Amino acid sequence: MTESVLAIPKGFKAAAYSSGIKKSGKLDLALICADKPVEGAGVFTTNKVVAAPVKITESRVRQGLCQAILINSGNANACTGAAGLQDARRCGDLVAESLDIAPEMVAVSSTGVIGVPLPMHCFEEHVPNLCRMLSHDQFDGVARAMMTTDAFPKMCSRAIQVDGQEVRLLGLAKGAGMIHPDMATMLAYVVTDAVLADGLLEESLRQAVNGSFNRITVDRDTSTNDTVLLLASGDAENLEIARDSSALEQFNDALNEIMLALAKMIVRDGEGATKLVRVQINSAANDTDALIAARSVATSQLVKTAFFGEDANWGRIIAAVGYSGADVDPDQVSILFDDVAMVAKGLGLGPEQEAKASEILKKPEFTVTVELALGEGQAYYYTSDLTYDYVKINADYRS
Amino acid sequence: MTESVLAIPKGFKAAAYSSGIKKSGKLDLALICADKPVEGAGVFTTNKVVAAPVKITESRVRQGLCQAILINSGNANACTGAAGLQDARRCGDLVAESLDIAPEMVAVSSTGVIGVPLPMHCFEEHVPNLCRMLSHDQFDGVARAMMTTDAFPKMCSRAIQVDGQEVRLLGLAKGAGMIHPDMATMLAYVVTDAVLADGLLEESLRQAVNGSFNRITVDRDTSTNDTVLLLASGDAENLEIARDSSALEQFNDALNEIMLALAKMIVRDGEGATKLVRVQINSAANDTDALIAARSVATSQLVKTAFFGEDANWGRIIAAVGYSGADVDPDQVSILFDDVAMVAKGLGLGPEQEAKASEILKKPEFTVTVELALGEGQAYYYTSDLTYDYVKINADYRS
Repeated sequence: MTESVLAIPKGFKAAAYSSGIKKSGKLDLALICADKPVEGAGVFTTNKVVAAPVKITESRVRQGLCQAILINSGNANACTGAAGLQDARRCGDLVAESLDIAPEMVAVSSTGVIGVPLPMHCFEEHVPNLCRMLSHDQFDGVARAMMTTDAFPKMCSRAIQVDGQEVRLLGLAKGAGMIHPDMATMLAYVVTDAVLADGLLEESLRQAVNGSFNRITVDRDTSTNDTVLLLASGDAENLEIARDSSALEQFNDALNEIMLALAKMIVRDGEGATKLVRVQINSAANDTDALIAARSVATSQLVKTAFFGEDANWGRIIAAVGYSGADVDPDQVSILFDDVAMVAKGLGLGPEQEAKASEILKKPEFTVTVELALGEGQAYYYTSDLTYDYVKINADYRS
Repeated sequence: MTESVLAIPKGFKAAAYSSGIKKSGKLDLALICADKPVEGAGVFTTNKVVAAPVKITESRVRQGLCQAILINSGNANACTGAAGLQDARRCGDLVAESLDIAPEMVAVSSTGVIGVPLPMHCFEEHVPNLCRMLSHDQFDGVARAMMTTDAFPKMCSRAIQVDGQEVRLLGLAKGAGMIHPDMATMLAYVVTDAVLADGLLEESLRQAVNGSFNRITVDRDTSTNDTVLLLASGDAENLEIARDSSALEQFNDALNEIMLALAKMIVRDGEGATKLVRVQINSAANDTDALIAARSVATSQLVKTAFFGEDANWGRIIAAVGYSGADVDPDQVSILFDDVAMVAKGLGLGPEQEAKASEILKKPEFTVTVELALGEGQAYYYTSDLTYDYVKINADYRS
């Protein structure tokens, strides 16, 4: 879904810098900046342990306007107490001073190790340099500077026509620990030049997050730093996108596509992951049941290790549905790997079908569909396999 | 906790046999048998997908009497439909015929692969042999015949004095997938020769399970076959243990000790596990909060991989408490590894303490204590580390 040429929304610039927070010398500081204060909306971690930058950004973005987003990797500035809050504020102030804008217009994000004070000298020294480097073609650098255990930068853009006027959306994300995402910070930023009617930005963001990042992560498993921001400059000068309009539908479709594409990139980049699996629950008693069943299968360690082993172990899948809490009649359950039926009415369909399913499991990307035959409920969830490398990456993360 | 000489309760015999269900030729069929119908109580899986033998055993044991328990490993007889129920009943009938007892007095348990019909010819041919081999000294064989991915058999016994009369309790268990126990069947049987007042057996069993097996497993993560049975022959001829008596306290203490010892053996034998870790939550707002926080830390993949990496990564621990749903004030949290403080009032105590904590993490067994400083709530949970071998065992399980 990443295009070779990104559609860069009008009215935004970006910069990336290697400030020394990462000892490797890789890019670790990034800035996204609008030419003026623009409309902003955000969704933040539900973890009760909230990192300092999230506290500050949430209260600022809630005012509805934002101009700059400063992002650092290598240090999460979480569990750092009152000093951490002060540091996060100082980071924002440094941007505000360099750009001569109001401090309340600056959002800050951090990702990396928890419980270690931010190395403020890196910011003091290099934020001014970063601000001087702002340009239209540095978004790729931002995606790189956000990376921690990510294997690749994550970007996606779309251009749509709204009443004959081109409107652009560009999304950037980081995150790779999505195998069981309890501590793998997910950061995502989408900028657009669309003009939207008042209040629509936040609604569009929430529905898009719900169909994308909330389908790869679990509420109770959010990190201390998770943040999704959407900024709209209005510089496309399109006819204002109104509530209940086909233009809004078009805009939301593009936003959903971008966010789902980024979310899938995060799963594909799951720490050590070799497979991207869509878990699709159909004909559940209702959508809520479908979702808890999908999440239960998608987060089961035993299901995920079976994916790694390319083992069509449907017993683990049906058991994960069984303990999910969703209504289930075991004698009505069907299970398919892509279009290969493995289970019908609760019974395995034998070695021939299993051999066919094993071929599906060798693919890097496939869908497991569970039909519950109880109602109209549907939901999906994206997951990865659980591998040796997951253990290696996470056992060694700090060393 | 396993003694070299087991205290075998009076009134019970046991037998184990290699019937060919396991292709390896290892023991796979076991029988525990009382000399007469005795009092029985059971606790069973809460999974909505319930294996056939569990359905039959639950309805039979609920009547309050039981004489024989037939156990096979190598095949779970789960997701096997109406034929599976018929097979489970036939297994019980074979025992009833051989021993000339009522079929309703026979409990049946199965553990192993899901979705494959029981190889009934193994039972038809060998249950009569098994029944002929019953003796007082074959409980060790039963523990072995129950094993699937278990690395060692699990047994524990106690002898207590009740009004000058010796009373014995003997527990046997299997289970090894407790790293995240969604599909690793846990079977446990405790037999005693105690005489208890009416109704006490079930109560004693429930409180003991709650403090032991429910501290290593999660309701939503029970397998299709989980079963705990407690049988009491009354052959110790002790003065009847009455409600609210010190004798009952003594009996429950012994039962709790046995069950907790078996539960800890299961964690220690966690698939691929190298460490047994007690997660202790203190001063939570209440006991329920303490329990959900303990479970959240104990089941976090990132916490468990950090244990494997011997990394005192307290950020992952505090984050797991944060997303657990329990009340938490991040600025009040303290964390200790055994007696080494790592975090006080939400802040890390620096490299010196971290170096000391790293030494604790090298031990095969240690305690992580989290103090929430909010109230009187306490709870513990036992967990293991998440290792390469966990992935290996579970990716390869069926091949």
